[in-house]
Amino acid sequence: MNNPFLDRAAPQIAGLTPYVPGKPVTELERELGITDSVKLASNENPLGCGDAARAAYLAEAEELGRYPDGGGFALRAAIAAHHGLAAEQVTLGNGSNDVLDQIARVFLYPGGESIFSEHAFAVYQIATTAVGATPRVAPARDYGHDLEAMAALVSERTGVVWIANPNNPTGTWIAAEPLRDFLSALPEHCIAVVDEAYFEYVEESEYPDTSTWLEHFPNLIVTRTFAKIHGLAALRVGYGLSHPAVAELLNRVRHPFNVNAPAQAAAVAALADREHVRRSLAHNRAELARVRDGLRALGLALIPASVGNFVTVDLGRLAGPINQALLGEGVICRPVANYGLPHHLRISIGLASENDRLLAALAAVLKRTA
Amino acid sequence: MNNPFLDRAAPQIAGLTPYVPGKPVTELERELGITDSVKLASNENPLGCGDAARAAYLAEAEELGRYPDGGGFALRAAIAAHHGLAAEQVTLGNGSNDVLDQIARVFLYPGGESIFSEHAFAVYQIATTAVGATPRVAPARDYGHDLEAMAALVSERTGVVWIANPNNPTGTWIAAEPLRDFLSALPEHCIAVVDEAYFEYVEESEYPDTSTWLEHFPNLIVTRTFAKIHGLAALRVGYGLSHPAVAELLNRVRHPFNVNAPAQAAAVAALADREHVRRSLAHNRAELARVRDGLRALGLALIPASVGNFVTVDLGRLAGPINQALLGEGVICRPVANYGLPHHLRISIGLASENDRLLAALAAVLKRTA
Repeated sequence: MNNPFLDRAAPQIAGLTPYVPGKPVTELERELGITDSVKLASNENPLGCGDAARAAYLAEAEELGRYPDGGGFALRAAIAAHHGLAAEQVTLGNGSNDVLDQIARVFLYPGGESIFSEHAFAVYQIATTAVGATPRVAPARDYGHDLEAMAALVSERTGVVWIANPNNPTGTWIAAEPLRDFLSALPEHCIAVVDEAYFEYVEESEYPDTSTWLEHFPNLIVTRTFAKIHGLAALRVGYGLSHPAVAELLNRVRHPFNVNAPAQAAAVAALADREHVRRSLAHNRAELARVRDGLRALGLALIPASVGNFVTVDLGRLAGPINQALLGEGVICRPVANYGLPHHLRISIGLASENDRLLAALAAVLKRTA
Repeated sequence: MNNPFLDRAAPQIAGLTPYVPGKPVTELERELGITDSVKLASNENPLGCGDAARAAYLAEAEELGRYPDGGGFALRAAIAAHHGLAAEQVTLGNGSNDVLDQIARVFLYPGGESIFSEHAFAVYQIATTAVGATPRVAPARDYGHDLEAMAALVSERTGVVWIANPNNPTGTWIAAEPLRDFLSALPEHCIAVVDEAYFEYVEESEYPDTSTWLEHFPNLIVTRTFAKIHGLAALRVGYGLSHPAVAELLNRVRHPFNVNAPAQAAAVAALADREHVRRSLAHNRAELARVRDGLRALGLALIPASVGNFVTVDLGRLAGPINQALLGEGVICRPVANYGLPHHLRISIGLASENDRLLAALAAVLKRTA
């Protein structure tokens, strides 16, 4: 598209693609003439949020005319208490994407660089490009972050290193020891971001909780979200944990009312509801195993040693047509060709009945197209 | 504060002040030992939102686990229909502040300039500085925008001209003819933003609806909000209206899920609820007149010919101590010294009982401190 206003825009805008929205499920169903589609495309918690979070949400209905608390007083206090940190170390985001963008706006600029892995979460590239900085992409190893390759890209121009642990969409993860070694070797002028959106789903004993490392690494920022295991994707709440001086800089570019009022209230309640987290984790553990078995029974390969609330499956051919055929069966998954994985399909773990639908539909589609 | 991380940050970050959050009302009440404070500080609709918007909000409680529609399909369609425009002309924001920031990120950059008026809305300065561009401030005339002074600042470096109509916190407004003349004379390379957050409150016959001017001015962006007369400040929804090519650029920097799911749903319902808008306008008309009379009876001067759902009153001395004394009476107003108006206090129009509290408390405070 030849946009006539592009020559008035900041130079980096030319390198950005506008978000192409997927059709809302209701529109898709109308086109397909169905009403019972199954959405396994966005790594949401199929159990939704817990009762406490929903109750907190409903209680906000009487105060919709009032601005949110611009400082996020109660939510930052709750997050700080949860992690044993100070409220001054917490930065709120309208989703953790917002925190990632705040980091880019503060620590990246034209002439600066950020480093991330091949197949890593798409927002690292977008946030870097949007501020006119240069992305440096390290080749993946076994679909995961190759920390040596990433370290080799570090230079005096490096402002930020983005690390997804585990990574979306590959589910690969990094153990405590190599990650600690990597952070220890990183020059102090580099900000290291460890994106832990799927933290609660990981049960491997060597998987680190880097929120406990902040006192050792003043240049570390850890991000978390309420969109995954807490089941609050609709509300957009994420946060960053860091040295207070880093948080102070992030808060210079944060929009004061970025997290809206019901989102703050529901997140406070969700954080306290450990039972809902346990229940969601148990559900994911059981169904993830069942979906993996079902996919392997179809002769499909999964990304080895992956974790999370999703599986990314190798279809052995272009995933686009298979995904289209699944849509025809009312099953919505996520193609990941834009992540350099054109043969893979990312499938979120749903309710048992939804996972049954997926496995049956995929079996039918593969048989039909064999 | 000497922030040790500042030398790693983008150069413009040094020019930004972190948002200093006001205390939440609940915290303030705890400190004051009261439970019945009156908040007239944020130009909210004292009637809150309408029943339809609240019902739409409540209906979202069962879907909190699902991501919002990243494209805002239903809300953009509703806004487009409301204005008789195409959905491609609508850009959604997490509050209209978010749209203002998107505009800055696209059309401003180091070396570029933006123009706005003395006493104008604070976000124009912040959004400009945050992207490393240079703010150029035109002196006000009678507290309002001096369009001739603004035009005199236009140069080849001008990326954006910000016009608040009416302006917050002064309530001054610009009539159709001078505004059209100003836009007609503006070079095509300048984006003109007309911020109409308080649009629905203005009943003056010469006040323009610039959303009807878009076909004549391809470089015009009009912003609106659901936070004021629609009574949805808690949810953060605003939007921009523009040429589709301008909207396409804004959507390159928009975060796909910037407006959360209940916010989208409630805004669709609010836009259709014209009766709530009429009721809110009638309330404001009656109470604004009564508050103005009450303030004049206290011997105070108001900004002449101002409009909106607030009054900005000249206390004839520093407003800070008066504001502190009012807080002691449980009445929360907004000092506007940061707008270059140290003697003024901005007071939102509340419910009749709240306005009574304000007038009585102010009378008592003025008497005590006379």
